[in-house]
Amino acid sequence: MDEKERDSAVSLNRRNFLRAGAAAGALAAGAGAARAQEADPLITEVQPWAQGWGDGVDANPYGMPIEFESDVVRRNVGWLTADVISSINFTPIHALDGTITPQGCAFERHHSGAIELRKEDYRLMIHGLVDQPLVFTYEDLERFPRVNRTYFLECAANSGMEWAGAQLNGVQFTQGMIHNMEYTGVTLRTLLEEAGVKPEGKWVYVEGADASSNGRSMPIEKALDDVLVAFKANGEALRKEHGYPVRLCVPGWEGNMWIKWLRRVEVTEGPVESREETSKYTDTLENGISRKWTWVMDCKSVITSPSPQMPIKHGKGPLVITGLAWSGRGAVTGVDVSLDGGKTWQPARLAQPGQAMALTRFYLDIDWQGEEMLLQSRATDDTGYVQPTKNQLRAVRGENSVYHNNGIQTWWVKANGEAENVEVS
Amino acid sequence: MDEKERDSAVSLNRRNFLRAGAAAGALAAGAGAARAQEADPLITEVQPWAQGWGDGVDANPYGMPIEFESDVVRRNVGWLTADVISSINFTPIHALDGTITPQGCAFERHHSGAIELRKEDYRLMIHGLVDQPLVFTYEDLERFPRVNRTYFLECAANSGMEWAGAQLNGVQFTQGMIHNMEYTGVTLRTLLEEAGVKPEGKWVYVEGADASSNGRSMPIEKALDDVLVAFKANGEALRKEHGYPVRLCVPGWEGNMWIKWLRRVEVTEGPVESREETSKYTDTLENGISRKWTWVMDCKSVITSPSPQMPIKHGKGPLVITGLAWSGRGAVTGVDVSLDGGKTWQPARLAQPGQAMALTRFYLDIDWQGEEMLLQSRATDDTGYVQPTKNQLRAVRGENSVYHNNGIQTWWVKANGEAENVEVS
Repeated sequence: MDEKERDSAVSLNRRNFLRAGAAAGALAAGAGAARAQEADPLITEVQPWAQGWGDGVDANPYGMPIEFESDVVRRNVGWLTADVISSINFTPIHALDGTITPQGCAFERHHSGAIELRKEDYRLMIHGLVDQPLVFTYEDLERFPRVNRTYFLECAANSGMEWAGAQLNGVQFTQGMIHNMEYTGVTLRTLLEEAGVKPEGKWVYVEGADASSNGRSMPIEKALDDVLVAFKANGEALRKEHGYPVRLCVPGWEGNMWIKWLRRVEVTEGPVESREETSKYTDTLENGISRKWTWVMDCKSVITSPSPQMPIKHGKGPLVITGLAWSGRGAVTGVDVSLDGGKTWQPARLAQPGQAMALTRFYLDIDWQGEEMLLQSRATDDTGYVQPTKNQLRAVRGENSVYHNNGIQTWWVKANGEAENVEVS
Repeated sequence: MDEKERDSAVSLNRRNFLRAGAAAGALAAGAGAARAQEADPLITEVQPWAQGWGDGVDANPYGMPIEFESDVVRRNVGWLTADVISSINFTPIHALDGTITPQGCAFERHHSGAIELRKEDYRLMIHGLVDQPLVFTYEDLERFPRVNRTYFLECAANSGMEWAGAQLNGVQFTQGMIHNMEYTGVTLRTLLEEAGVKPEGKWVYVEGADASSNGRSMPIEKALDDVLVAFKANGEALRKEHGYPVRLCVPGWEGNMWIKWLRRVEVTEGPVESREETSKYTDTLENGISRKWTWVMDCKSVITSPSPQMPIKHGKGPLVITGLAWSGRGAVTGVDVSLDGGKTWQPARLAQPGQAMALTRFYLDIDWQGEEMLLQSRATDDTGYVQPTKNQLRAVRGENSVYHNNGIQTWWVKANGEAENVEVS
């Protein structure tokens, strides 16, 4: 089906749906609206905004969201970390649609605060097991061939509080440690080839310039595959909190490895076993043994609306269910939605074909008659992997883990349209 | 070639290129950087930003660009229109990369200022030659099946000042009446089918809620094809200056038809012949006769860097030439770049395969030895159409036009790296 056929199919399906809804006595959006036409002063009278001037172009050299959307912002959870300089700002995914995350409200996490680093003060060192150690200025990086890719970044701890059961009442907090942007940069491979990797170089250690010296090891195969040294996101410079002027993109792998304010890349024989890959970012199992090197973010999805922060306010009838799906191992090939807590499933519609290691938007259009629902989504990727339930994950990994919870999320939608984070057994 | 092969090819080509450059005595980025390593205090000393705390997450509920990027903003040209409430804010395309335009710096034009219209005050009327006139609230629109598409919007007047020769020294002003965003909304077809278009309905008239009542006619075939009634751009609500809460997207067609603050859609037998499609948005030819209904934005491209606002500052050696290409008739299939004012051409690399009616980013990596260049780009789309020269356009249309100048742009790059807007005969 090409794009035009898909749009037509959507439109025709809807028409059939509204007819069916009307026949069943549902309040079709169209029929309800038609009644409003006769008496609504917003239609029959000339409104103030049609009688005067609005803002001139000089008012907005760089525009911000309109005041009425002031609740669509990042939020942190006070008790989650010891201090705001080592905390987490969650994306308001409940209020967004499509797949691109604007930088201004995109998830951020840092370990000693977002630093201010000028382009002219920026240096990137490549050293260790290389033929020629190199130091690049920002200007040097701009002279290498560039690539553009849209990738999701998900924190390994996303949904981590859900291991012990339904904890937080809002998808912004349960699944909002994620964003999806179009990155522009130079492949790390290009820079490593400039330096020349010695045969004994099997790993790289990547480190940031902030006081936390956040650093991670990765196998040389990944470093030479698809890792980007990025300086733009969604077309413009990285924002301060996203690592201005240069960050790493490690497609499909946990966000902690996407080093911000990237300072150095050391080619090594083995992993460094840094703080961030020993005491943190490992997964302690039921028997007390910890899994490590669990870099890849497995296939996952969540319904963003309706959800606890996005109750149904419009009453019975047509309802758009929507959400996001992604996989660190490839492209999402399908998403199923359940209205009954996983007893029965129906396929959702993907807004666009899934792209490797990028967010996919899905929709399911239903006729809601006020019945309670246990809403779930379940994604499948092109490796054939199917998103598991939380209990399936617990059966394998216990409940000691913080990271890599990609279990199916459940929203209990009540008759009044409100939704609550729950678990079904 | 899949994505991975393309990246590898880029990387290998570059390595060969740097070797060739080094052999020819060029300053390779790598070699220059290696020398810097020994003496640079930015490498050898612990810097202030690595010794203290940065901003906490509470500092940025909605982030703005860092202060060092304060010149990457929209700009207007004072003399272009009578007043800032009916003016144009150009996208800083010289400083952007990739394809997505952030809403905050995306081109805006309005005719009586950007108005403030709350979602709860929003109404959309569909009337005229329909079975059942309908009025939709914002909430109604949210209940119809949604689609997501990335489209460029280009003002018909983009590059209009170039008809009379090279006028303005900056790609922001010569080609910056354009943006490219991921839109989410309902197809106009869905809403028209709700109302039921009568057989005699052959056109629609679409109109905005601001005081200018900006309104345009379009054939019913386009209205039922790919037009979107959009409420999100790049995932979040439309900004005020982009038509909050609802605007029209008319893919591939001139920006003036993308009605902001969309108020009504009237199905008619013929075109309305409004002010905006008679005295404006028509193209007066050499003989005084005007073309009208010239809706489609033809295939076009421009080099964004180097350009007058983006001189070469790094001296001889590796240079990344980059730009944007697009077509209102389909997908860009190729872009050629000339360094000598159109005498010889070489194919540029597309960052991603061209998408229909969306911006395409292209790159050409060269070894610049300080020679003067007459830089040009020339795009081809999937209809086989090739972007013409300005003189080819003038031969057909004369110089009385304001709109639809998709001619090839020339930047004269001087030995000192500065660039100037010029014409070649």
